[in-house]
Amino acid sequence: MRVEGVGMNGQDYWLPQPDLDGIDVGTVLQALADPVRLQIVRALDAAGESTCTALDVPVKASTVSHHMRSLRESGVVSTRLVGNARPSRLRRDDLERRFPGLLASILSATPPSRDGGDSPAGGPDPKPAL
Amino acid sequence: MRVEGVGMNGQDYWLPQPDLDGIDVGTVLQALADPVRLQIVRALDAAGESTCTALDVPVKASTVSHHMRSLRESGVVSTRLVGNARPSRLRRDDLERRFPGLLASILSATPPSRDGGDSPAGGPDPKPAL
Repeated sequence: MRVEGVGMNGQDYWLPQPDLDGIDVGTVLQALADPVRLQIVRALDAAGESTCTALDVPVKASTVSHHMRSLRESGVVSTRLVGNARPSRLRRDDLERRFPGLLASILSATPPSRDGGDSPAGGPDPKPAL
Repeated sequence: MRVEGVGMNGQDYWLPQPDLDGIDVGTVLQALADPVRLQIVRALDAAGESTCTALDVPVKASTVSHHMRSLRESGVVSTRLVGNARPSRLRRDDLERRFPGLLASILSATPPSRDGGDSPAGGPDPKPAL
């Protein structure tokens, strides 16, 4: 993965990331399957854009930074360079174009109900969520 | 997870699986993030219903069986008992109700293009897929 050159004229600079058509669904699923990374993605969804330090997640900024890199390299987030800060944001539009509905369905997912762990009657037609 | 009792009257019997409202998006993402399990899911999508032995994937039936259990316990597939056979199928309708758009977006995802690995110009606006 190529490191971006530093441009001029007040332009934004970005850390390297895969092109839209280079994003792989398996890699994105691996990125999102980690519980901490999924928390980071939800926090970025709420924040819009955030540095690792400012993000509202219950882990150290250095841990966030490590996971943010995975998210960027898999195509889930973009990271800008602004002086010494590196704010990141979800690649919401890119992911919607590449895998329509995927990110939205994950972000809108509700937690499982407490009593919904097993199917008491068995079979493929469980009771609907309340 | 409770083991289903064996019923009577020619009814189908099913291995235990989480209820619709007990399915967790993080667990589903973990299940689908494994490359072999994603292959199994794609093969089941094509086959409709299949035993581990008959499924068209390039791994041993015992490996398929191991992964099929993970997929069932996470809520991605249902497995019937038919004599000694255990055909499985995707819980397509359940997953669509629980996480609308998730499974469809994964199954319809195209592989990344060969030359789409890096963003030559950087920034959050990569070139569109050809």
